[in-house]
Amino acid sequence: MKEVDNLYKIRHSFSHLLAAAVLQFDPEAKPTIGPPTDTGFYYDFEFSKPFSESDLPNIQKAMKKIINKWQGFEKVEKTPEEAREFFKNNPYKLELIEGIVERDEKITFYKSGDFLDLCEGGHVDDIKELNMSAFKLSHIAGAYWRGDEKNTMLTRIYGYAFESKEELDTHLHMLEEAKKRDHRKIGQDQKLFFIDEMVGKGLPMWLPKGNILKSEVEKFALESEDKAGYVRVTTPHIAKEELFLTSGHLPYYKEDMYPAMEMDDGTYYLKAMNCPHHHRIYVHEPKSYRDLPLRIAEYGMVYRNERSGTLAGLLRVRGLDMNDAHIYCRKDQIKDEFKSVMELTRMYFQTFGLTDYWFRLSKWDPERPDKYVDEPENWEYCEQTIREVLEEMDVNFVEAVDEAAFYGPKVDVQFKSVIGREESMSTIQLDFIAKERFGLSYADKDGKDNNEVFVIHRAPLSTHERFMAFLIEHYAGAFPTWLSPVQVNILPISSDKHSEYAQEVAEVLRAEGVRVEISADESLGKRIRNNIKEKTPYALVVGDEEVKEGTVTVESRDNGKVGSVKLEKFVKDISTEIKNRA
Amino acid sequence: MKEVDNLYKIRHSFSHLLAAAVLQFDPEAKPTIGPPTDTGFYYDFEFSKPFSESDLPNIQKAMKKIINKWQGFEKVEKTPEEAREFFKNNPYKLELIEGIVERDEKITFYKSGDFLDLCEGGHVDDIKELNMSAFKLSHIAGAYWRGDEKNTMLTRIYGYAFESKEELDTHLHMLEEAKKRDHRKIGQDQKLFFIDEMVGKGLPMWLPKGNILKSEVEKFALESEDKAGYVRVTTPHIAKEELFLTSGHLPYYKEDMYPAMEMDDGTYYLKAMNCPHHHRIYVHEPKSYRDLPLRIAEYGMVYRNERSGTLAGLLRVRGLDMNDAHIYCRKDQIKDEFKSVMELTRMYFQTFGLTDYWFRLSKWDPERPDKYVDEPENWEYCEQTIREVLEEMDVNFVEAVDEAAFYGPKVDVQFKSVIGREESMSTIQLDFIAKERFGLSYADKDGKDNNEVFVIHRAPLSTHERFMAFLIEHYAGAFPTWLSPVQVNILPISSDKHSEYAQEVAEVLRAEGVRVEISADESLGKRIRNNIKEKTPYALVVGDEEVKEGTVTVESRDNGKVGSVKLEKFVKDISTEIKNRA
Repeated sequence: MKEVDNLYKIRHSFSHLLAAAVLQFDPEAKPTIGPPTDTGFYYDFEFSKPFSESDLPNIQKAMKKIINKWQGFEKVEKTPEEAREFFKNNPYKLELIEGIVERDEKITFYKSGDFLDLCEGGHVDDIKELNMSAFKLSHIAGAYWRGDEKNTMLTRIYGYAFESKEELDTHLHMLEEAKKRDHRKIGQDQKLFFIDEMVGKGLPMWLPKGNILKSEVEKFALESEDKAGYVRVTTPHIAKEELFLTSGHLPYYKEDMYPAMEMDDGTYYLKAMNCPHHHRIYVHEPKSYRDLPLRIAEYGMVYRNERSGTLAGLLRVRGLDMNDAHIYCRKDQIKDEFKSVMELTRMYFQTFGLTDYWFRLSKWDPERPDKYVDEPENWEYCEQTIREVLEEMDVNFVEAVDEAAFYGPKVDVQFKSVIGREESMSTIQLDFIAKERFGLSYADKDGKDNNEVFVIHRAPLSTHERFMAFLIEHYAGAFPTWLSPVQVNILPISSDKHSEYAQEVAEVLRAEGVRVEISADESLGKRIRNNIKEKTPYALVVGDEEVKEGTVTVESRDNGKVGSVKLEKFVKDISTEIKNRA
Repeated sequence: MKEVDNLYKIRHSFSHLLAAAVLQFDPEAKPTIGPPTDTGFYYDFEFSKPFSESDLPNIQKAMKKIINKWQGFEKVEKTPEEAREFFKNNPYKLELIEGIVERDEKITFYKSGDFLDLCEGGHVDDIKELNMSAFKLSHIAGAYWRGDEKNTMLTRIYGYAFESKEELDTHLHMLEEAKKRDHRKIGQDQKLFFIDEMVGKGLPMWLPKGNILKSEVEKFALESEDKAGYVRVTTPHIAKEELFLTSGHLPYYKEDMYPAMEMDDGTYYLKAMNCPHHHRIYVHEPKSYRDLPLRIAEYGMVYRNERSGTLAGLLRVRGLDMNDAHIYCRKDQIKDEFKSVMELTRMYFQTFGLTDYWFRLSKWDPERPDKYVDEPENWEYCEQTIREVLEEMDVNFVEAVDEAAFYGPKVDVQFKSVIGREESMSTIQLDFIAKERFGLSYADKDGKDNNEVFVIHRAPLSTHERFMAFLIEHYAGAFPTWLSPVQVNILPISSDKHSEYAQEVAEVLRAEGVRVEISADESLGKRIRNNIKEKTPYALVVGDEEVKEGTVTVESRDNGKVGSVKLEKFVKDISTEIKNRA
């Protein structure tokens, strides 16, 4: 029996309890398997009568009654014949039993009250550990027997289970938040993007408002990369197989790439990564030591052949618009370059209000040299260099042996999302292999050819798709002013009398690059409520008083009623707010 | 015999003269065909002995001698037998003779002096019309017999011929200019882009400096489209075949598209146009009359499967990054929208200093209704509307019947390039068919569904590829300041003493968004010469005097030595120049 923790035992025990309650409800139901999960448990059944989500509260009540009669879990060994006889009407359990027999393992049942189930064990030692206020049946779903769509569709009942009620409540609250913040829902409500079945799965269509979000993030990346001395290139989205054979994407990565296109001059593929194209730009002109570091950046679109069934929203797509760059540097420049990238990443996190993050230095395993590029000196040197960077930056980090890519060590940036999910948005990756594959080199001070060119792969803002999903969830659609598709909504009190002034105000703001809409239909109250619903950062109410005084009455989404302000002052304030990405 | 103009006759006559001279040089040479061209003539030969471009001056001299013995062109009819006998050693002419026999046409020869050639006629009436100072043999090239690479490779001799020496000189001058301005050469010299055989033909790789050019043009488009009320979207570069079946690209345009990619959920293609994606964005949400006009813009990348042998530089590519937009409007909005697009186009032409342009209104042919969408009222209405726009704008235009696309009338914008080539950079296209194919409609004032949605296709800045080629040629690489990859080159007189101040100047300029380089190596003279060669708009020389006075000594590429100027003034002037795209 495998080692399991206490929460595993609690959750596993609950699934027995669930099965017992289901058999009271439908004695002819056929239980199949019921494992614990990361947040609770499930159990799959073939019901003999209709079953719906509305039955869950009754099942839950039944569970609370049954538990009172249970003392614990009593192990019962059975011979194959006994086991088969017990489950003679349940083909699923019979299949499981045959599996155990084939593997030549002992067949064990567990008994609690008068409920008996085939089970390898792993329950609570004391039945009192099952906290009946810390579990909840949540929902049902269809599930094929053994996950195979050729098999019978069963009914899966899901439950959450924790040690304490507080933990359950926290989890339920988080789920509610996650639902409210779901990027697909907000994306639809705010008209940011959509997936069009006629265009294809995993290929987001960016609507005008979503495109503004995307452009603002891109502009931010461009500006900060510009300041950090990056140069920008544009490379085609396709290339001949020769390129990908050189990079090694073919044949190793072939199944993740789009299918080949045969042209009159060779075989072409959509690119799955930008690096091969950037390496070709590096070698296009001979380089000298003075040309390094060379930081080549591109918002490059890459394509990955994910299975259509796995595609969902912006989180699992086939076309990825990547905040990509490759830094080519000498060995003595690795430290500064790595540090700059880390600092850029930290600056981004700060701007987006992410505070709960840490780093992981993923290293090679010197005991397994066959798994990694055979350059022990470079491994030692680079890992030590990165460690120094992490220490000097005084950030939280852990080290992990045998977690590097085969071509160099990397730093993964982990953070906890606003709904408590642990995420890795960016990876900063050192690469010792590109220099060999692509013949990267430079002439050093004496004019000698030096092929010790190190490549840093980095994409701190991930892909547009993933980052937008993150931003939508992070802000629950209430984007900071600089990102908001509409920044100011002007509400003339009377569309007859105040529209002209509203227009004037709009023009002054637009001239400063502020994104403005005017809402003149509907009642003022309704328009203010709409504005709150649409999460526009500012509403400006204008009426007689405002026209006379040259003011606007400001309602802030985040700070409520601000009151009457001179137009010039509002323009100045919002411009500063936007410029500072506050 | 077809109707031909006098220039045709002159050029055709010259090709006879060329053949006569070649047969003096190599009596065993086999002449094949020798037609006139747009600028002169050529003739293809199979030589019996080596022939090179260095032989052309002698051939040209021989032509000038032979002409003295010629009186004119005398027509001689021959029977098939006589013709075959005459050319019994020339399989090419024999093949041509068999063709004439098969078509049951008369076989005619033309005789001048003692040179006799198979020919259908079309020569000058008076041999004196051949101006011997207005022709020039230019170069030779290989050419397959009948253009088929399975046939023998012949030697083609090209010549230019005009009516006057002035015209020839103008043409030769233009060719020289074209060579100097060749976008491939300048693109390489200035490190703007390159074509990488490993990535693929027709797929430009934009180097950092070329990428700046491209971004500046894109920024210009974004700004002006933003002002003109366009919204921006981003759509994937691929789509399922369902989309292209709906648009009609499949099957009609299939051979121009990249090959299909079979995925687990259908067949995908790289898009050859952006319109289908934009139409799907239109129908994604129901539209009301208030939502129109809707102007959807995107710098969308499209892919066309040109044959690899035809690909050249930026002018013939397979990946095209298009300044695309589609305007969806009601019938009563066509005029305003069409006019705005025309005005935008005119503004672009002005900015880029194009003055020699005119418009062509391409109309349907009411006599051939089967060739066009059957909506006579819309044809009449739209053509009249466009005519009014052209008249109100007071621009040069011509009208052409039976030149429209099958789905609507269009305006082609023609201009003469700086080397005299007539070009069409942009087409503004009305579309009556999209509404049917994609179900475009809107709710009118009474809430009724109205499907009279007109689409304007427009791309005034063409594709990045074509427009960059044009810009490079137009400016011969000396781009105006706002477009220049490097705008200012700072030259400290002594790298020891003045580098610090040079750095200060650079920082002040960079803070204002000016693209600056510092050149400190080499002698000052060499650096100034380099700067002229690299066509950087401004060089700033800084030495003791400048450090002391807080000035810079300005050398302007276009205006020569400007002299000493306060740094603040230079910053202000260049910022204004850049901002105004002067």
